[in-house]
Amino acid sequence: MTRTNQKMYTLGDLVARFGGELIGDPELRISQVATLEQAAAHHLSFLSNPRYRSKLAATRAGAIIVGQGAREATAIPRIVADNPYAYFAKVSAFLNPPSIPAPGVHPTAVIEDGAEVAPGASIGPFAHIGKGVRIGERTWIGGGSDIGDEVTIGAGGLVYPRVVVYRGCVIGDRVILHSGSVIGSDGFGIALEEGRWLKIPQIGRVVIGNDVEIGANTTVDRGAMDDTVIEDGVKLDNQIQVGHNVRIGAHTAIAGCVGIAGSARIGRHCRIGGAASILGHLEIADHVEISAGTLITKSIRAAGAYTAVYPFAPHREWLRNSVVLRHLAELAEKVRRLEKRMAGAERSKT
Amino acid sequence: MTRTNQKMYTLGDLVARFGGELIGDPELRISQVATLEQAAAHHLSFLSNPRYRSKLAATRAGAIIVGQGAREATAIPRIVADNPYAYFAKVSAFLNPPSIPAPGVHPTAVIEDGAEVAPGASIGPFAHIGKGVRIGERTWIGGGSDIGDEVTIGAGGLVYPRVVVYRGCVIGDRVILHSGSVIGSDGFGIALEEGRWLKIPQIGRVVIGNDVEIGANTTVDRGAMDDTVIEDGVKLDNQIQVGHNVRIGAHTAIAGCVGIAGSARIGRHCRIGGAASILGHLEIADHVEISAGTLITKSIRAAGAYTAVYPFAPHREWLRNSVVLRHLAELAEKVRRLEKRMAGAERSKT
Amino acid sequence: MTRTNQKMYTLGDLVARFGGELIGDPELRISQVATLEQAAAHHLSFLSNPRYRSKLAATRAGAIIVGQGAREATAIPRIVADNPYAYFAKVSAFLNPPSIPAPGVHPTAVIEDGAEVAPGASIGPFAHIGKGVRIGERTWIGGGSDIGDEVTIGAGGLVYPRVVVYRGCVIGDRVILHSGSVIGSDGFGIALEEGRWLKIPQIGRVVIGNDVEIGANTTVDRGAMDDTVIEDGVKLDNQIQVGHNVRIGAHTAIAGCVGIAGSARIGRHCRIGGAASILGHLEIADHVEISAGTLITKSIRAAGAYTAVYPFAPHREWLRNSVVLRHLAELAEKVRRLEKRMAGAERSKT
Repeated sequence: MTRTNQKMYTLGDLVARFGGELIGDPELRISQVATLEQAAAHHLSFLSNPRYRSKLAATRAGAIIVGQGAREATAIPRIVADNPYAYFAKVSAFLNPPSIPAPGVHPTAVIEDGAEVAPGASIGPFAHIGKGVRIGERTWIGGGSDIGDEVTIGAGGLVYPRVVVYRGCVIGDRVILHSGSVIGSDGFGIALEEGRWLKIPQIGRVVIGNDVEIGANTTVDRGAMDDTVIEDGVKLDNQIQVGHNVRIGAHTAIAGCVGIAGSARIGRHCRIGGAASILGHLEIADHVEISAGTLITKSIRAAGAYTAVYPFAPHREWLRNSVVLRHLAELAEKVRRLEKRMAGAERSKT
Repeated sequence: MTRTNQKMYTLGDLVARFGGELIGDPELRISQVATLEQAAAHHLSFLSNPRYRSKLAATRAGAIIVGQGAREATAIPRIVADNPYAYFAKVSAFLNPPSIPAPGVHPTAVIEDGAEVAPGASIGPFAHIGKGVRIGERTWIGGGSDIGDEVTIGAGGLVYPRVVVYRGCVIGDRVILHSGSVIGSDGFGIALEEGRWLKIPQIGRVVIGNDVEIGANTTVDRGAMDDTVIEDGVKLDNQIQVGHNVRIGAHTAIAGCVGIAGSARIGRHCRIGGAASILGHLEIADHVEISAGTLITKSIRAAGAYTAVYPFAPHREWLRNSVVLRHLAELAEKVRRLEKRMAGAERSKT
Repeated sequence: MTRTNQKMYTLGDLVARFGGELIGDPELRISQVATLEQAAAHHLSFLSNPRYRSKLAATRAGAIIVGQGAREATAIPRIVADNPYAYFAKVSAFLNPPSIPAPGVHPTAVIEDGAEVAPGASIGPFAHIGKGVRIGERTWIGGGSDIGDEVTIGAGGLVYPRVVVYRGCVIGDRVILHSGSVIGSDGFGIALEEGRWLKIPQIGRVVIGNDVEIGANTTVDRGAMDDTVIEDGVKLDNQIQVGHNVRIGAHTAIAGCVGIAGSARIGRHCRIGGAASILGHLEIADHVEISAGTLITKSIRAAGAYTAVYPFAPHREWLRNSVVLRHLAELAEKVRRLEKRMAGAERSKT
């Protein structure tokens, strides 16, 4: 664990701050959160999934956050909360605030004319801040990041080292951009003429709302003419590709390695599993869940869970089945013919 | 839109420059291109897909580029062109030239001994140009890019911030490399000896032709011994992985998140959909189209379209079907037995 | 080829150093390795796959490494080795040592307080070395890399330009990190509360063993609470995503574009093909091979090869088959009914 020498808080402090019902000694002191397996006497752990209930017996955690259903499942001091995982998230965020360099511009950074960096912002070494850029209060721009001309980044942001934001993009408050992410690169706009591709200038922007997190090496292309839009509260994991003119609705969460092709519109409160793909120009309704590895080829109009996963098997077994899959239409045709012959046989019998 | 204060051009200017038949006022002034939905009085829009013809009624575009088939589909001033999308691409490129810093080397850049940077080139802040590198006229090397020893980059190139080109690679004229792309990293060459992997030095190069565009965070590995080659006019989208010794034929376009394993040879004028994969040592003929999400496991000798996509469905429906898929060979065997029994029944009847 | 003006070695030198049986002139001089197709008189080539035996006739290689089975397959001077590919790997590594800048810290690099850089290490331009970092002997930190506070990197490492290592991560000896790789970014830890996502601080580390190689633009997330661990000798290709708390066992090799979701545990000596995906919280046994493009949805307890690949076909053929796949459960039901009717028909006949 990288965070040590933590300040200590009593369980009483935590319950006063975050609510929940305390069963046990309010003076017990907590320095950090930990998993049930790794927790020690000064650690607060949590049980959110009943599947792991058997781990309660062996844990050495000083205290545990549990749901109502598990309030009597252990004798260890515990905080009973309606949503133990969310409760744990809040306590952990309180105990582990991001460690950001002090405000100020590193002497090696290059700030172009007309850029406005808030006095409470922190600009790292070798960062390049373009003309007319605005950086909000308490925002950190990590070392070696390149912020293009006329970009706006709001307050309280964390831009980790080596992020690139192309010119003109707009980023809200409390946005986290992880290292290697690229915001506003050109969309894949090309037109064919006599066997050669002509580039179509990508003159839209990327507009990112508040409280968005974008993972390492994720790319978000600027719009071709209109903007690419990522609404408030969207969480994108690593190595996701977002094509031009995509819109991702508020509070949607997308796991790693997903590709979203141009002009797709994803609804609000969706969850998309890792390595899924969504083709271009589709619309996905609100509250849709897409399974990992699933390719979406048509618009989805209704909330619900959708899947397209080839079931894995030992290689030989896969081979036997896949041979049939290659000729599945023939198999269906054979069944159709059998049904006819059977009907004939049955008729002739009577 | 990020590009404002555009110069104005009359429709007459545009037709004089790019051809096509003008129907309407040649003095009408245009400042920018826009979609049919977003266009205003000084915007030129286009209709290339007849599917969107219904949008003509509501558009407020000042003028529209249309194909021959739609010449009478609107009363708005219009340019009739054989290939309206390509025409639009040319007009947009004319109205929106890339905005590149003035020629010169930024005072923070590090240029190693023996590097030759053309006087008209522009080298950004914190760029590192290795020994013996040659950078051609009017090429921009964005901030923080690292160009390895002995690399050659031609004229008119756009190397966006934070690109890495490993030593010895050769890049043609008018090549665009987007941020985060890595050219010439080691291929995945390893040899197994008693359960451990030995690294095989990757001593080939990457050789990129003219008019190639490479998307954000795309990686192109150097050859193991011979070179990895990307021919003229190839367009690669974001987050594509090109393995060692791959050859991609001229004017092939590849969408985002595609993986191409080592020593595959892709033909000319191919189109590969997003998140497709091509296994190693395969050959793909010219003019092949591969659908998004398709894994190619064998060489393709004939032009045409190829697909391998598991059809997505509501999760429960998928579950019902996938259970059968796991035992597909058994289903085929049942049908085979039924056919025999049916033949027996039919024989006995006669 | 980028490596020229090589030193020359005799075949006798090589056999004295690496073993094997020499058939031919021990004074023959070799400067480089090459493929059978490209090799010239001073090149050493190799034949490891019997499939390529026919290429022996046309090669102009000065000498060839062959296995026991091919010792008489050519008259060219040859080294007979038990494992010709591993032998070739060793000779090539000997002829092509990595070219690393001289020891020392580039004047533009920023080294924070308390960082310890070994005297034999080399720190490139615009590198940023955080507080309390330790960099071992003969390790190269390429230009523009950002090494977070309290990171440890062992001896003999190659960190190519523009790598980011987040705070607190631990990296062993002889580790290679290619450009654009990001080590220790936050895992995708979020908790839902009333439709909004709360971020869970990621307070674990990434711990990487010895002799690990990590490809360009690959990302390895830090643990949520415990660590993400990559054991000795693991080889990761480009654009792989490793989620938080994953453990990858020693000497496992993973090809490009693979995604491994959080808390998955991969065994030792596994091989995972390109663009495969492994869901979270799964366990994969030692010596498992996973085919390219395969999505693993359940734990794998036994060594062996596993596959889930939809067979590709010309688009129309795929269309015919996929229509049936959408209704596969109905097809199975039809067969079940046919079997009943057939049994009825057979019974009534007797």
